[in-house]
Amino acid sequence: MPHISIIGSGNMGQAIAGLFGKSGATVEVIGSSDAEREVTGDIVVLAVPYPAVGQVIAQRGAQLAGRVVVDVTNPLNFETFDSLTVPADGSAAAEIAAALPESRVVKAFNTNFAGTLATGTVGGRPTTVLLAGDDADAKAALAVVISAAGLRAVDAGGLKRARELEAVGFLQLTLAVGEKTSWTGGFTLAH
Amino acid sequence: MPHISIIGSGNMGQAIAGLFGKSGATVEVIGSSDAEREVTGDIVVLAVPYPAVGQVIAQRGAQLAGRVVVDVTNPLNFETFDSLTVPADGSAAAEIAAALPESRVVKAFNTNFAGTLATGTVGGRPTTVLLAGDDADAKAALAVVISAAGLRAVDAGGLKRARELEAVGFLQLTLAVGEKTSWTGGFTLAH
Repeated sequence: MPHISIIGSGNMGQAIAGLFGKSGATVEVIGSSDAEREVTGDIVVLAVPYPAVGQVIAQRGAQLAGRVVVDVTNPLNFETFDSLTVPADGSAAAEIAAALPESRVVKAFNTNFAGTLATGTVGGRPTTVLLAGDDADAKAALAVVISAAGLRAVDAGGLKRARELEAVGFLQLTLAVGEKTSWTGGFTLAH
Repeated sequence: MPHISIIGSGNMGQAIAGLFGKSGATVEVIGSSDAEREVTGDIVVLAVPYPAVGQVIAQRGAQLAGRVVVDVTNPLNFETFDSLTVPADGSAAAEIAAALPESRVVKAFNTNFAGTLATGTVGGRPTTVLLAGDDADAKAALAVVISAAGLRAVDAGGLKRARELEAVGFLQLTLAVGEKTSWTGGFTLAH
């Protein structure tokens, strides 16, 4: 099992740390403001809100070279809940990949509410974690850990598919705010 | 229960006709090439592939005025399965609504495989039909019929949300082609 660093100790960071802990991986959680502490993980999860990603990259870009970097963000306009803040033909993941050309970026967990990562279930079934990225080995390394924790990892394709994953994450957030699904619910993918 | 016209007798047209039949609504199915036959439904479902919608609108635009028009399409590039054919910041539903300013357009069923409309279930649970549209009464009229057939109708918001519904439909199709889900599966929305 890989060694994993999680930057950010909010709801998502804590839930992902718990999930990885179940898998047998070793996990370090680094507060997003703890810029002095170097990341050591083979896999580094940027578990901070999208507007904070730029600062993490500015602080740690060189440290992230050669590592698998996991983008969990949903780049919503949280004032209106009516649009994303990235270009319509792009994605947060594509922007992060462009800013970190020496990292292998995987989009993951953005279609999962934190509560469903903590419990590992949605509606009584294993939580489905959708992955997108251009590096098959990076996705496979992450999928192994997710599966070992009892969740279902599904490779949704190349990094280009992050756009659709972000659309799903956005839609799911609006459905939860509108009480059409709960914060322990959301989408599941049937077999 | 309303009277419903379905234009198109392919997999989706047949599945939707079967669903509406269970609800107690009266249903007429009109072949997409049967341009002579006028639609009479309060609700008209355009159950044709996206590239064929333009011709239906050209033939029947005037007949569709004042009716609820349901767009079920996924405007994929079916050669590559790697992109949509509508502008990144738009949707097929938005284009159809622009072409039919006197109709009340609702996006629906595009996130459902035909098989899950026929059986009414995905993974042992009621199929979730996501709706988007700007006319609340039109969405409510459609939701009543879907619910009466035993499926779950979820109002996902205004017509602007059709963009995200089309992203979900696109992603779901790629997942089925990649055998990550089955043609009787796909996404479900937990409570």
